Amino acid sequence: MAEAAAQDLLLAAAFVSDAQYNRNIPFRTSPEAVRLYHLYNHWMMRTATYFFIFLNLSLALFEEPAVYPLPFLATSVLEVLCLLVFLGRLTHFAKVTLHNVFWKDAKNICIMGAILLSLTDLGIYGVLRLYGVRSIRWSRFMRPIFLINFAESRQIRRALRSIRNTLPEITYVFLLFMFSLLMFSLMALKLFGERNLQTAEGLPYFRNYLEIVFDLYVLVTTANSPDVMMPAFDFSSWYALFFIAFVIVNTYIFMSLFLAVVYNNYKKHLKNEIRKLAYMKRRKMIEAFNLLKEEEGEQFVVREARWKQLVKLVAPDTSNSHRELLLRISDDEQKGFVDKKSFVQLADLLNIQVVTLKIRRHPLARWAPALYGSTPSRLLRGLVRHRAFVWTFDAIILINAVFIALDEDSISYAEWVFLALYVIEILLKVYTYEPREFFGKTQFWNWFDTLIIFAALTATILNATLQSTMRYNSQQILDIVFILRVLRLIRIVDSIQRFQVIMNTLINIVPTMLTFGGLTLVVYCVFAIIGMEAFHGKIQYFPANSNAPHALECGNPALKDSLFARGKYCKNNFNNFASSFIVLMELTVVNQWHVFANGFANVTGQPAKLYFIAFHIVMVIIIVNIFVSFILEAFFVEYSLEKSEVETAIEQKIQELGMGVQEDELQHEQLLDNMESAEHELEGDGGAKAQSKGLVFKIASKRYRTVDALLQRMFEAEIPLEDEGLSFEEILNLSPSSAVPRSPSSESAA
Amino acid sequence: MAEAAAQDLLLAAAFVSDAQYNRNIPFRTSPEAVRLYHLYNHWMMRTATYFFIFLNLSLALFEEPAVYPLPFLATSVLEVLCLLVFLGRLTHFAKVTLHNVFWKDAKNICIMGAILLSLTDLGIYGVLRLYGVRSIRWSRFMRPIFLINFAESRQIRRALRSIRNTLPEITYVFLLFMFSLLMFSLMALKLFGERNLQTAEGLPYFRNYLEIVFDLYVLVTTANSPDVMMPAFDFSSWYALFFIAFVIVNTYIFMSLFLAVVYNNYKKHLKNEIRKLAYMKRRKMIEAFNLLKEEEGEQFVVREARWKQLVKLVAPDTSNSHRELLLRISDDEQKGFVDKKSFVQLADLLNIQVVTLKIRRHPLARWAPALYGSTPSRLLRGLVRHRAFVWTFDAIILINAVFIALDEDSISYAEWVFLALYVIEILLKVYTYEPREFFGKTQFWNWFDTLIIFAALTATILNATLQSTMRYNSQQILDIVFILRVLRLIRIVDSIQRFQVIMNTLINIVPTMLTFGGLTLVVYCVFAIIGMEAFHGKIQYFPANSNAPHALECGNPALKDSLFARGKYCKNNFNNFASSFIVLMELTVVNQWHVFANGFANVTGQPAKLYFIAFHIVMVIIIVNIFVSFILEAFFVEYSLEKSEVETAIEQKIQELGMGVQEDELQHEQLLDNMESAEHELEGDGGAKAQSKGLVFKIASKRYRTVDALLQRMFEAEIPLEDEGLSFEEILNLSPSSAVPRSPSSESAA
Repeated sequence: MAEAAAQDLLLAAAFVSDAQYNRNIPFRTSPEAVRLYHLYNHWMMRTATYFFIFLNLSLALFEEPAVYPLPFLATSVLEVLCLLVFLGRLTHFAKVTLHNVFWKDAKNICIMGAILLSLTDLGIYGVLRLYGVRSIRWSRFMRPIFLINFAESRQIRRALRSIRNTLPEITYVFLLFMFSLLMFSLMALKLFGERNLQTAEGLPYFRNYLEIVFDLYVLVTTANSPDVMMPAFDFSSWYALFFIAFVIVNTYIFMSLFLAVVYNNYKKHLKNEIRKLAYMKRRKMIEAFNLLKEEEGEQFVVREARWKQLVKLVAPDTSNSHRELLLRISDDEQKGFVDKKSFVQLADLLNIQVVTLKIRRHPLARWAPALYGSTPSRLLRGLVRHRAFVWTFDAIILINAVFIALDEDSISYAEWVFLALYVIEILLKVYTYEPREFFGKTQFWNWFDTLIIFAALTATILNATLQSTMRYNSQQILDIVFILRVLRLIRIVDSIQRFQVIMNTLINIVPTMLTFGGLTLVVYCVFAIIGMEAFHGKIQYFPANSNAPHALECGNPALKDSLFARGKYCKNNFNNFASSFIVLMELTVVNQWHVFANGFANVTGQPAKLYFIAFHIVMVIIIVNIFVSFILEAFFVEYSLEKSEVETAIEQKIQELGMGVQEDELQHEQLLDNMESAEHELEGDGGAKAQSKGLVFKIASKRYRTVDALLQRMFEAEIPLEDEGLSFEEILNLSPSSAVPRSPSSESAA
Repeated sequence: MAEAAAQDLLLAAAFVSDAQYNRNIPFRTSPEAVRLYHLYNHWMMRTATYFFIFLNLSLALFEEPAVYPLPFLATSVLEVLCLLVFLGRLTHFAKVTLHNVFWKDAKNICIMGAILLSLTDLGIYGVLRLYGVRSIRWSRFMRPIFLINFAESRQIRRALRSIRNTLPEITYVFLLFMFSLLMFSLMALKLFGERNLQTAEGLPYFRNYLEIVFDLYVLVTTANSPDVMMPAFDFSSWYALFFIAFVIVNTYIFMSLFLAVVYNNYKKHLKNEIRKLAYMKRRKMIEAFNLLKEEEGEQFVVREARWKQLVKLVAPDTSNSHRELLLRISDDEQKGFVDKKSFVQLADLLNIQVVTLKIRRHPLARWAPALYGSTPSRLLRGLVRHRAFVWTFDAIILINAVFIALDEDSISYAEWVFLALYVIEILLKVYTYEPREFFGKTQFWNWFDTLIIFAALTATILNATLQSTMRYNSQQILDIVFILRVLRLIRIVDSIQRFQVIMNTLINIVPTMLTFGGLTLVVYCVFAIIGMEAFHGKIQYFPANSNAPHALECGNPALKDSLFARGKYCKNNFNNFASSFIVLMELTVVNQWHVFANGFANVTGQPAKLYFIAFHIVMVIIIVNIFVSFILEAFFVEYSLEKSEVETAIEQKIQELGMGVQEDELQHEQLLDNMESAEHELEGDGGAKAQSKGLVFKIASKRYRTVDALLQRMFEAEIPLEDEGLSFEEILNLSPSSAVPRSPSSESAA
C-alpha cells in the first residue's frame, strides 16, 4: 500500500513537472516507466543530448573540406559515437512512451531513418575511400534532422510548423509577385532591350529575358539599386518612372504583403499552439490531483503532508520557507488540505520565481562589529548607498569613454586609474551590502560589472607582464581588453528608467531568439553543405601581397573584371564550413548578394544563381519575416500584459504574511539598501514573525518573464477552473480556427 | 414657417452629409452659413483647391533651377494667383465656421502665416533681383504647409499626428540604438584602428571615430555590407564575429524594434481616431434627427416625405428606386415614418454602394429582334457566356506573352493578329451583354480591357502610319505600345480565385496609399528644396561621349576615383526639382545611399552627410515603417472583418423585396450572364413585382471597401444606439487610453 502510494506520488510528480515545463510526452504510467521518465528528463541527460547534437553538427568543421583537418578515422569514430548516443536516447524514449505512440510519431521514424542512412553512407564512403574512390558524403545534409526531431527541440519544431502553415498563403502571394516580376521584365525587355545600352561595367544592358528577371529580382531586394536603373535613366529621365513603379509595387507593397501574411499566420498559429499548451497543463494537473486526492467532507482534496511530499519531489531546490509560502497560498484558510482549485494552480505557482531574500548580517558586522558599526564606517556605507554614488560612477564611465576614444597607446596609464576606480567601486559595494545578496541570482548587473572588470583587470595585468618580460603585445589579449573596456560602458544604460523598459523587453526576447538561432543553424547547415559540394575550391583567397597566378581574380580567371573580384570578396567562399557560414550570413543581410550570385555563377554556371535565389526566399522572405513577426508580437505582448492573477494572489499572500518587499523598492542598489534598513529595524524592536525568520520574499521582476509564459496566461483565463478539461488527444487535435474548443464537459461546466 | 422648415432641412442635410463623408468642420448653423457650407463642400471647390495646391508645389519645376525654365515674372504671377486662391478658400472657411473656432485653429493660423511669409519673400526676392542681388527663396519650404493644413487633407494630418504621437517612444529607442552604435564604433576603433588596414579603394580603414560611426550607421541600413567588413575579415576571420554581432543587434533587433514601436503606436492612434470619427458621426446624425423630428404617439420620428426630401438633398444622384429601397429598409413596417434608431443609420446606408442593375434588353434585341433572337445568334451568345470562352482568351494572352518575349521586330505581324483577336473579344462581349451594364461603374476589368486594347490599337495604327509615310519609328509611341501590350497580360490574374482575394486587398489599400503619397510628397518637397539650395550645380551630368573637362568625374575634380563617379551616378544630382525627387527616391530605397552621401560630401563638405542621415531617419525609419504598419493593419482588417450588420440588413431587405442577386453569382461575366437569364425568365412568365420594375439591386462587392470604413464599423458596434452621444468637444478630447469614453448620458443609457 505504501509502495503504491509512493508510486502514485512519483507519477503525480511527473505530471506536475510536465505541466510546469510544458512537456508533452505521453509516457507510460507503470512505476518503472515513470522512474525512467524522471531520468529521461534529468538535465544531465538533456544537456548530453544537446552536446552530441552540436558535436555532430560541428563535425563539418573537421571533415574535408576542413577548417581544422582531422583524419577521416577520427571524424568517423566521432560520428558513430554521436549516432550511438542518439540511438540510446531514442531507445530510452521508446521505453518511456507507449509503443503505438512511439511508432506513429514521425519524429522518431525520422531519427531512426537518419541514423541508419548516416551509418550506411559512412560505410560506403569509407569502403570507397579504401579503394581510392572519392564520393559525396550525402548524409551530411541529414544532420540538422537530429536538432529538429529530438523531443527537446519543441520550440524549433513549433517555428517549423508555423512556417509550414504559412506556406500555402505565402505561395499564392509569391506566385502573384512572380507574375508581376515577369510582367515588368517583359516590359523592360521591350523598352530597353534594343537601345544598345551598356551597364557601368560596359556589359550589354537588359538584353536577355532571364537576365532581366534576375536583375529585377535583385532590385526587389534593393541590392542593385540604383545601378540597374542608371543606364536607362541616363538615356532618358522618363525611364526612371518605370523603376519607381517597379519599386513601389514589388519592393514596398509585395514585400510588406509577405510580412503581413507571415505575421498574420504566425499570430494565428502561435495562439493556437499556446492554447493547446494551456489545456495540456490543466489536464496534467487534474491527472495529478486525481492520483493524490482523498475524500474530505463533500469534496476531494490533497492533504498537506502529501502535498509537501509532491512539491519536494517536483522542485527539490526550493527552500522550506518557500514551500511553506506556497502552501499558505494554496491552503488559504489553513485547513490542512489543498482543494482541487488551488491544486491546479501549483504548476503556475512553481513557475513564478519567488526570490527568497535572507536577511543576513554583513559578515564584517559579525566578525568585527565594533569596526563595522563605527561612525566612519556608517558614514562610508551611507555614502555608497546614496544616489550620488551611482551618478559619480556614471560620470567616471563617461570620462572613461572619452579617454578610450582619444588614447593613442594600446593601454595607457589612465586605464590603470580607471580600472582601480572600478575595483574600488565594487569593493565598496561589497563592504556596504551583504555579499551573498549582492551576488544573488537575479542581480544581473552586479555580476556583469564584476565579471567584466575582473576579466579586464586580469587581461590588462597579463598583457603588461608579457610586455615587460617579453616585450610582446599579444594581439588576442589586447583585443579582449579593448572589447571589455567598451562593454563596461553598457552599464550606464541601466541607470535611465526609460531605457530599462526597452532593455527588459530585449532581455525577455533572448530565450526565444535562441529558437531562431536554432532555425537559422538548420538552414545554414543545409545550405552550407550544399554550397561546399557545389562551389568548393572554385574561388580562393590569397593575401594582398601574394604573387600566385590570378591572385587578383581569386585564383579563377573567370572572375576577371567581375564585381566580385573588384570588390575583393575572394575570402567569401565555400571552401570550408566556417567560410560558408559567413557567406550565408552576408547573404542574409542581402546587400551585394547579386555580386556573390554572379561571381559563383561565373566560376560554375548560370544555374548557380538558383542556389542564391533559393537561399534568399527561404532565409529572407520566410525566416527573417518570422523573426520580425516574433519581435513585433513579443513587443506587443510585453506592452499589453499586466501582472497575472496568480502573481497577484502570491503577492497578496506575501504581504499578508508580512514578509513582503515592495516591488518598486526593488531597484538594484535600493533593494539591498532596503534590506539593510530592515535589518536595522530588526535590531531595534525585536521584530515580527516574518522578520524573526530572517526572510523576505519578492516576485522576480518583470525582467525575467518570457513571451511564451505571458501569452500562455492569456489563454489560461479562458479555461474554467472547474473544468475537467479535454483528453490529451482532443487537445492535440484542436483546430486553429475554433476559439474555444467545444466539449461536453466544458459546456456542462459553463 | 415653410422657409424655416427648408432651412432646417438644409442644415440637417449638411449634418448627414458630414456624417456620410466623415467631415468634422464645426460650421455655423445660420441659414446663410449653411448655404455657404454646402458650397464650400462642393466637389468643384475642393478639386480647384487641390489643383492650386499642386500647381503651387509644381512651381518648383519652373523656378530656378528649373526643369522647364519660365521667366521669373510668370512663376511669380502664378504663385500670387495660388496664394490668392488659398486666401479666398480660407476666407470662405472663416465665413462658414464659428469665429472663435476659426481663430483657435492652428491650421488656419499656419495657412495665413504661410501666405503672408510667401508674399513677403516673393516681394523681397523680386526687389533684390531688380538690383541684381541673388538671394534664397526661403519661403519655398513652406509650400507643403498648404497641402497639409487645408481642411481637405484630413488623412495626411492624421498620419502626421500619428507620427507625432510615435515620436517620444521612437526617440528613446533611437537613443538606445545610437548608444549601441557609438559603443560598437568605439570597439571598432580600438580593434581595427591601428592595424593599418585599407579598404578595397585603398583608403585608410576605420581610423577616424566619426567616419566609423557613419560607416557603421550605413551598415545598419545594410548598404555597405559586406564591403565594410572585408578588410578586417581578410586580416583575421575571427573579426567577422564583430560584424555578425553588430548586424544582429542593430540591423535585426533594433530595426525590428523601430517597426514594432511605430506599428504599436500607429494601431493605438488609428483606433482612437476612428473611434472619434464614429462618435462624431453618431452625434451629427442625432443633431439632424432633432432638427427634423415630429411627435408621433410616444416617440419622435421623421416623416416619410421629409425623409425623402432630406435624402434627395444629401444624395441627389441616387435613383428613385434606390431611395425607395432605402426607405423600405429604414421604415421597415411601412408606417410612414422613420424612427430615431433607423434614422441614425442613414449615413451608413448612404455609404453602402448599392448597385442598381437595370434589366434592359440588349439594344440589338430591340432594333433587330429577329436577327438577335435567331439560332446562330443565340448559339454565339451561349458560346461567349461559356467558361471556355474565358479560358480560350487566357490561353491567347499567354501565347501573346511568348510572342512578345520572342519577337525581334518592333511590331510584328503577329501583333496585328492578337490585336484583332482582342478587339473581336470585346465586340463579342458587347454583342452578348447589355452595353450599358458591361461598362457599368464597378466593372473595373471590362473598362481596363477595353481602354488598354483601344489605346494599343490607336498607338499601333499611328505608329504604322508614321512608319509607312515617313519611314520613322516614334520612340514615345513605340514605348507606349510596348507597355500596353504587356499590361494587357494582367487580366489573366483575375481569372484565378485565389489571386482575386489578394488583388482585392491591394485595390482596397490604394485610396489610403494616396495619403502616404501625400506624406511622401511633403517630405520630398522639403528635402528637395533644401537639397537644391545646398548641392545645386556641384555635380553635373555629361553624355557618354562628351569631352567636357572632368566629364568622367561628373564635372567636379573632387569626385576623382570616388565610388560615385565610378558608379556613373552623375545624373543623380540636385540640379533641378525632378532630379532631386529621383535622388530622394533612390535614397528611400536605401541601397548605395552612402555612395551618394560620400559623393555630395566630397563636393561640399563632410556635414553634408547629415542631410542624408536626416533623410534616412525621417523617410525610412519613420515614414516607410508607418507605411508598412499601414499595410499590415489593412491586411489584418481585411482578413478579420465579415459583412457588417447594416449591410446584412440591407441585403436581407433586398432579398425580401425579391430584387436581389446573390453575391456569389456576381463574378464578372457571370454577373451579366445571370442578368441575361433573369431577362429570359421575365420574357417567359411575365415576372414578379420587382422584375416588373426592371431593377435588381446588389451590394457592391467587398473589392471596393476602404480600410477606414471597415475599421470604423468595429467601433460603431461600441456605441449604444439609444445613446445621445457626447458633445463635439467631448469627442475631440477623447484620450487614446480610455476604451469607451465615460459620460453621464452613456452611463444612464447602459
